[in-house]
Amino acid sequence: VGRAVPRSIAAALADLVGARQVLVGEMAAGHERDWTGRFVGHTPCVVRPGTVDEVAAVLAWCNDRGVAVVPQGGNTGLVGGGVPLDGEVVLSLTRLDSLGTLDHDARQVTSGAGVTLGRLQDHARAGGLRFAVDLAARDSATVGGMAATNAGGLQAMAFGPMRAQLRGIQAVLADGGVVDHLGGLVKDNTGYDLAGLVCGSEGTLAVVTAARLHLEPEPAHRVTALAGFSSVGAAIAAARRVRDEAPGLEAAELFLADGLELVVDTYALPRPVATAAAYLLVEVAGAADPAEALAASLAATDPVDAAVAVGSQRRAELWRYRELLTDAIGHQGVPHKLDVSLPAVALERFVPDVEAAVSAVDDTARCWIFGHVLDGNLHVNVTGPAPHDDRVDAAVLELVAERGGSISAEHGIGRAKRRWLHLARGPVEVRAFRALKTALDPHGILNPGVLLGAASSS
Amino acid sequence: VGRAVPRSIAAALADLVGARQVLVGEMAAGHERDWTGRFVGHTPCVVRPGTVDEVAAVLAWCNDRGVAVVPQGGNTGLVGGGVPLDGEVVLSLTRLDSLGTLDHDARQVTSGAGVTLGRLQDHARAGGLRFAVDLAARDSATVGGMAATNAGGLQAMAFGPMRAQLRGIQAVLADGGVVDHLGGLVKDNTGYDLAGLVCGSEGTLAVVTAARLHLEPEPAHRVTALAGFSSVGAAIAAARRVRDEAPGLEAAELFLADGLELVVDTYALPRPVATAAAYLLVEVAGAADPAEALAASLAATDPVDAAVAVGSQRRAELWRYRELLTDAIGHQGVPHKLDVSLPAVALERFVPDVEAAVSAVDDTARCWIFGHVLDGNLHVNVTGPAPHDDRVDAAVLELVAERGGSISAEHGIGRAKRRWLHLARGPVEVRAFRALKTALDPHGILNPGVLLGAASSS
Repeated sequence: VGRAVPRSIAAALADLVGARQVLVGEMAAGHERDWTGRFVGHTPCVVRPGTVDEVAAVLAWCNDRGVAVVPQGGNTGLVGGGVPLDGEVVLSLTRLDSLGTLDHDARQVTSGAGVTLGRLQDHARAGGLRFAVDLAARDSATVGGMAATNAGGLQAMAFGPMRAQLRGIQAVLADGGVVDHLGGLVKDNTGYDLAGLVCGSEGTLAVVTAARLHLEPEPAHRVTALAGFSSVGAAIAAARRVRDEAPGLEAAELFLADGLELVVDTYALPRPVATAAAYLLVEVAGAADPAEALAASLAATDPVDAAVAVGSQRRAELWRYRELLTDAIGHQGVPHKLDVSLPAVALERFVPDVEAAVSAVDDTARCWIFGHVLDGNLHVNVTGPAPHDDRVDAAVLELVAERGGSISAEHGIGRAKRRWLHLARGPVEVRAFRALKTALDPHGILNPGVLLGAASSS
Repeated sequence: VGRAVPRSIAAALADLVGARQVLVGEMAAGHERDWTGRFVGHTPCVVRPGTVDEVAAVLAWCNDRGVAVVPQGGNTGLVGGGVPLDGEVVLSLTRLDSLGTLDHDARQVTSGAGVTLGRLQDHARAGGLRFAVDLAARDSATVGGMAATNAGGLQAMAFGPMRAQLRGIQAVLADGGVVDHLGGLVKDNTGYDLAGLVCGSEGTLAVVTAARLHLEPEPAHRVTALAGFSSVGAAIAAARRVRDEAPGLEAAELFLADGLELVVDTYALPRPVATAAAYLLVEVAGAADPAEALAASLAATDPVDAAVAVGSQRRAELWRYRELLTDAIGHQGVPHKLDVSLPAVALERFVPDVEAAVSAVDDTARCWIFGHVLDGNLHVNVTGPAPHDDRVDAAVLELVAERGGSISAEHGIGRAKRRWLHLARGPVEVRAFRALKTALDPHGILNPGVLLGAASSS
């Protein structure tokens, strides 16, 4: 019996999408684990619909039978939200990869859920526009997954996260009903904001099949600077000053002395600026050349040292010190990745306090802290503790909650953070979440292990 | 019996908020009708809680007894969404008028629901910041009402509507549960976006009691220009060109030859520029003086004539021609106010077509068209037809829907547009709306006459 059920699911879904688009056994293996290898599950089959109608048919079939589904995009999530840990069917959206022509008047484009961020960026850039969400997984992460998780990334401080880019959505509800709202109206106060609600719901309320996306003009000039400061507080203050003085600030990344040392050592890179306690990488863009304004503003922050880059190659060289950091940390062991945000007022103090909190739990643990400083968004990576020893995770998240912060700034709750959701949201909010979940997915088939977990386990 | 029920409601609510804060009879009259006089109802009482706990107590009491409630802010709505047309209790939020200190690091402030937009703007400006939603009713409209209706206004093209300013919300659910999420975290992917969902729900899902709001820096320079063009299409093209060439464009208002003539005649104002078919009022702001860039960009659009104003008095003089237009139309009779948006590609063609569609219904009707052109948001005011003759409304909204537009860009559905909701949202979406409404307000006490109407009447 244990094998008969999965076989019948695969066979039934093959009738809906074609036998070639239903993967089982070894062919499904790549969809059963996340890219970090931390979350590994098993699925009766991976179903790969090629149209929104096929997505609707698959969901209607699963809904009628109470078969749970995990929607999956580029499988680049970090919280176990896209893999079948409880034997769910994997609904892969990667074949929905159509990309519309650029609408220059509206500065918009319609993208299928399966389009990768990198492809979307290239498409926009070819028309002198750009899609203003950027993140390191750009060549794998898909528009659908990014919408479902409200992805943030490097430029969210200037342009907001994925939710801020959505001008409409096409999504399939649990019962197979299709919400089709891709007209791209900027102003449309005609009912509840379904697009914004589905965005960030981590596949638990609906399956995103396409999105109408806002585009920004591609700036004529872009300047990047890396500066070292004598303290974390000085670096944070500098980021705010540059924001206030240099219009067009689009990124402000903070990292610490040990992070820069690690990158320099791991990749045998030259030291970009003199050694300092904290580093700030900022990027300013605009129609007019912002180099002078940025340099003047940075100089006024009294840095230990600073390097300013204008050309794209020199800029990329500076970005390496930030972008290689995640990979370099991975060389130190499998990190516990905590993605938190703090109120502006609590940010500076949090850095030493979280290091102390981690040490108190495990004096062999090592903290690596970096992040999007003007969003108050810090990535706290901890190496040392065994992968499934989550005492350190608990200590960090409890400190964050105590300071009024978020236990998940960008990555979502997924499965990994579910047990700590109560730190972030009060009982009234969680009850409202459950009511909304039940309203849109009464049989609980959409990613039931994620965010709230099954209602019975609450 | 008919009188005993209302008296008992007032008495019971007086126990919760104090007798002085429950208004009945003549004292309630101002809350029973909207400011246009189009919507007039009757309430057993107006209850004016002074704290969020009192709001919660009032709602819990009403929820237990199935007593319907209309939340009311500054009562400046245009679609009958804030008045007790079916004998509801009026829940006035104006006493929740506390305004927090400015958080300059985060560029945020916490505002009670009852704070007027004008007071919020003044408060921000006193600290060198600004609240980036602006609209003509600024001295009456409140933060709570603006959040509940996702207000747009003059600068939405640059900064987005109210929803884009929300960094957190405090709201009371129908059962009296309080969602308290005012920490101001910019990034917080920990569950569903309740703030965004409540925003624009027109008081049907929860009652907003406070909001954490994003603020923008106050620009050092501001330039306004009024230009005339030989056609509507030329004016629209000019607006897009200025947007692309002059960074910092914050407003682009279109109006037509007859609108300018009407303002000039009604208020005996000088003609600001040579006569043209269509006019564009644009405003550009920035840290650097944008006057030269704006003038150059405008010149390249080949206007019939243009006036550029830098000083605040001259700028205000130009704004009059746009801001007095609504009032001037009112002098022609009670207008049918239709607030629609169109896809960018459909905007130019819509102007003559809607005039033709209105004439076809009633050849004595007169269209006055103006609006926020870069949002595709046009206000179509029609004078001539009797106030309750809605054939013209139907003709305009059907044309809008046929062109892929929105039947309510900014104002909301309220009661006035409810019968046309099906033009804007398909049956799957409306079903999802009903499910969400039932999930959060199972007894249907929150503004039941608005948006969807009572479930039984669907």
